Amino acid sequence: MIMQIKIYKEPELRDPYMVTGLPGIGYVAKLSVDYLIKELKAELFEELYSSSFPPYVLIKKDGTVELLKNEFYYWKDIKSKNDLIIFTGNTQAISPEGQYEISNEVLNRAEKFKVRKLFATAAYVTGRYLEKPRVYGAATEPELVEELKKYDVLPMDAGSISGTNGLLFGLAKLRRIQSVCLLSETPGYMTPSGRVLADAKAVQALLEVLSKMLDIKIDMKPLEQEAKMAEDFVQKMEELERRWVEEMRKSVSPPPKDIYL
Amino acid sequence: MIMQIKIYKEPELRDPYMVTGLPGIGYVAKLSVDYLIKELKAELFEELYSSSFPPYVLIKKDGTVELLKNEFYYWKDIKSKNDLIIFTGNTQAISPEGQYEISNEVLNRAEKFKVRKLFATAAYVTGRYLEKPRVYGAATEPELVEELKKYDVLPMDAGSISGTNGLLFGLAKLRRIQSVCLLSETPGYMTPSGRVLADAKAVQALLEVLSKMLDIKIDMKPLEQEAKMAEDFVQKMEELERRWVEEMRKSVSPPPKDIYL
Amino acid sequence: MIMQIKIYKEPELRDPYMVTGLPGIGYVAKLSVDYLIKELKAELFEELYSSSFPPYVLIKKDGTVELLKNEFYYWKDIKSKNDLIIFTGNTQAISPEGQYEISNEVLNRAEKFKVRKLFATAAYVTGRYLEKPRVYGAATEPELVEELKKYDVLPMDAGSISGTNGLLFGLAKLRRIQSVCLLSETPGYMTPSGRVLADAKAVQALLEVLSKMLDIKIDMKPLEQEAKMAEDFVQKMEELERRWVEEMRKSVSPPPKDIYL
Amino acid sequence: MIMQIKIYKEPELRDPYMVTGLPGIGYVAKLSVDYLIKELKAELFEELYSSSFPPYVLIKKDGTVELLKNEFYYWKDIKSKNDLIIFTGNTQAISPEGQYEISNEVLNRAEKFKVRKLFATAAYVTGRYLEKPRVYGAATEPELVEELKKYDVLPMDAGSISGTNGLLFGLAKLRRIQSVCLLSETPGYMTPSGRVLADAKAVQALLEVLSKMLDIKIDMKPLEQEAKMAEDFVQKMEELERRWVEEMRKSVSPPPKDIYL
Repeated sequence: MIMQIKIYKEPELRDPYMVTGLPGIGYVAKLSVDYLIKELKAELFEELYSSSFPPYVLIKKDGTVELLKNEFYYWKDIKSKNDLIIFTGNTQAISPEGQYEISNEVLNRAEKFKVRKLFATAAYVTGRYLEKPRVYGAATEPELVEELKKYDVLPMDAGSISGTNGLLFGLAKLRRIQSVCLLSETPGYMTPSGRVLADAKAVQALLEVLSKMLDIKIDMKPLEQEAKMAEDFVQKMEELERRWVEEMRKSVSPPPKDIYL
Repeated sequence: MIMQIKIYKEPELRDPYMVTGLPGIGYVAKLSVDYLIKELKAELFEELYSSSFPPYVLIKKDGTVELLKNEFYYWKDIKSKNDLIIFTGNTQAISPEGQYEISNEVLNRAEKFKVRKLFATAAYVTGRYLEKPRVYGAATEPELVEELKKYDVLPMDAGSISGTNGLLFGLAKLRRIQSVCLLSETPGYMTPSGRVLADAKAVQALLEVLSKMLDIKIDMKPLEQEAKMAEDFVQKMEELERRWVEEMRKSVSPPPKDIYL
Repeated sequence: MIMQIKIYKEPELRDPYMVTGLPGIGYVAKLSVDYLIKELKAELFEELYSSSFPPYVLIKKDGTVELLKNEFYYWKDIKSKNDLIIFTGNTQAISPEGQYEISNEVLNRAEKFKVRKLFATAAYVTGRYLEKPRVYGAATEPELVEELKKYDVLPMDAGSISGTNGLLFGLAKLRRIQSVCLLSETPGYMTPSGRVLADAKAVQALLEVLSKMLDIKIDMKPLEQEAKMAEDFVQKMEELERRWVEEMRKSVSPPPKDIYL
Repeated sequence: MIMQIKIYKEPELRDPYMVTGLPGIGYVAKLSVDYLIKELKAELFEELYSSSFPPYVLIKKDGTVELLKNEFYYWKDIKSKNDLIIFTGNTQAISPEGQYEISNEVLNRAEKFKVRKLFATAAYVTGRYLEKPRVYGAATEPELVEELKKYDVLPMDAGSISGTNGLLFGLAKLRRIQSVCLLSETPGYMTPSGRVLADAKAVQALLEVLSKMLDIKIDMKPLEQEAKMAEDFVQKMEELERRWVEEMRKSVSPPPKDIYL
């Protein structure tokens, strides 16, 4: 359930596109969208807090707390034909119902801002290491599938896309919002050496296609370095997640006050 | 929770029967009802979208997206005494509460259209291979059990019927809607060679009884061929499901943006 | 969530007691209460249907369907000082929230009928075979604990009582309804030979105490024979449950219609 | 869902601080707060009952029942600058949604009483035995992190805090309530000898910091002795929890009344 909405600004946007990416396999979607926000210096304008998010808080480097949340950024440019709304966050809803709810909440914004096209990002799990990841795609309409091919995107012809990243894309169709989903190949969680991977190569492949489709320019040079730093933290997050699951199992047991003290 | 209802048409139906079948064991119910829709050229008139469905979207052969949904079809014929409403879909609600909710939603339609009898379809798991599957049955009233016997249906005398296929049938009783459930014998998921089975034989046995009870004619010839094609896709779907469950476990962990980038 | 309430009758009751018992370990609570209903020829006056119950329906010997439900019976007698309301059912809510909701729904009835005392029944798991099971007890007030001792009930001095049987008893305290819980010793599910046990001895021990406390007479002779029959069915139900859990895991996967047919 | 709120008193409080602690790893938070309540002779003024709590009731030494609940205590003193509200309970909500709901409910009280600062307590799991546990801290604002250092609290610089103890602290930020979280090092559940630990040393370390920050005096002498008694009961509670989980799995299966009796 949406607990709180924080609106920082109500931007006026010209024929905006929307790009979405939440944490998922290989952090491909999340890392891609974060890089876009950073390079474009996009501005935060709204936050969502939901009780369907995992029940923990994060601690930042400076010792202050950060809540799990989903965020909307915007970017506008005098030269651009289409302004941009970027949806991301540091978590996904846990329950299926929560994922559907958040997706619908995001699409409410898409309707409000009259979004012309929604670009969802996601990972395409291959299960093995790839020298040069390819980008797959799917769309709400056959014409958009054809357009994808012009950008060397391989059309999917079966399968499924799961989680909020997939639902956002699919539910757009119900609202008659044109939408494509770009999925970058990634081995999954484990590299050959067994490490968790924040997949910089997959992110780069995805951003190359996405920036062409959005007709914007992004400097790819800082990406590899940042992705390296990301890996360490992704690894840490994995462990936090594991610990939380373990703690859940351990910490439910309630000792009655009047018995043990 | 029902998220959206799409009504394409409001058919006028004469003393309609309702036939229901959702994906379940061996896809017996789903394949039976789909075959009926195809052979009768039944027409889609309403769709249900629920946040209790699994949180993913499907990609079709042409690269476009398909949402998980439940559907109502109708069929009417000058010669028939009873028109037909057919309820099916490409998924079932995940949670028990969702399954109860969808069942009640369907029965609301049954009441609205003054359905005379509801025919639920389901699988009867035997755990072993069967040369010639039999059809079992149960009903809301003893008189209907007697009627089943006339069609060589074996009355069940114990056990349970689970999922939306069973709830639809049972909850009909609470609404005083006459209802029977036809269950075709199927080995379960594995054939002797270990393959997932879209059980064409079970579907044929079920449709032979059902068409007699509905007093309609269906050409059974195309069934076997189509069922063969179906098996490959069922196998694929099984894998998608497995992959989703795996991804769920993997992809919840949220990396905080301001830490890793 | 309560889906439907069926009221058959609105009995007028004199200073009634309420006895509650739902299926639990060893079926002690359920068998005790069912026996009471049968011997007293208590009359059904209300049924509850909830979407928090497990998602399946049962098939009876005569081939007709039975929904999972919870039931209220009443019994009144010219000679008795206190009439009786008996709460039972063929299932418990699955989710904790559902169990709390049903418990509160039952206590609403207790308040409406001005119930003087609530007698909850439950099992006391010992983990080993017992020649002569004892009856443990707990209460909402110290005075009631003292009263229990007069009936040779052993007061519990630690531990917990789980499920609807325990919540009913505990939540009564919040409503200031006097309540005791009677727990009959039972080994748990397995007898020394590994069979599931519908524990007739535990039922008898419980009913001997309960009938004294209610000041009514019950013929115990038919109990043992009926309990024997019960065991076979309990065993069958165990298997149904296991099968449902298995089917759940197997049958969620949705094959998209336009792909496989 | 909050089922019931019992208000015993509406205290008038001067610039109150709030201290929170629910059962979690090592019972550090719960034991700390309980000790505080006892030593200060704080007074109970409100209780919360929720259907998100585990579905069982506890039995006390005197044979009476105790419901799972969360509680608010207050303490005021002529000499003190800041009165105190203490939030605790004998359980945590099971579901993430329930944990978020309770946290928001508590923060509603914090706003109502114009709480100046919220002190959340929690455990910092080290995974190994510690001769002298240290106290870690995090805060809603950098200035509060600096303040923590003055009390020899080690600022966290990464990681997460899970459960209601963490959410309370984090969600305070959304309400612009100043908040710090104090986490005392504890090995986790197992001591070197494999026993469940109610960690008195961790409690003492936490209380030493907390009492300084609250500017109150607490006698630490009775702590060690009480903590010893606590361990036995914590062990017992662990077992109750395990038994409940097991019973859940065993006791769902519903035998239909008209079949087995």
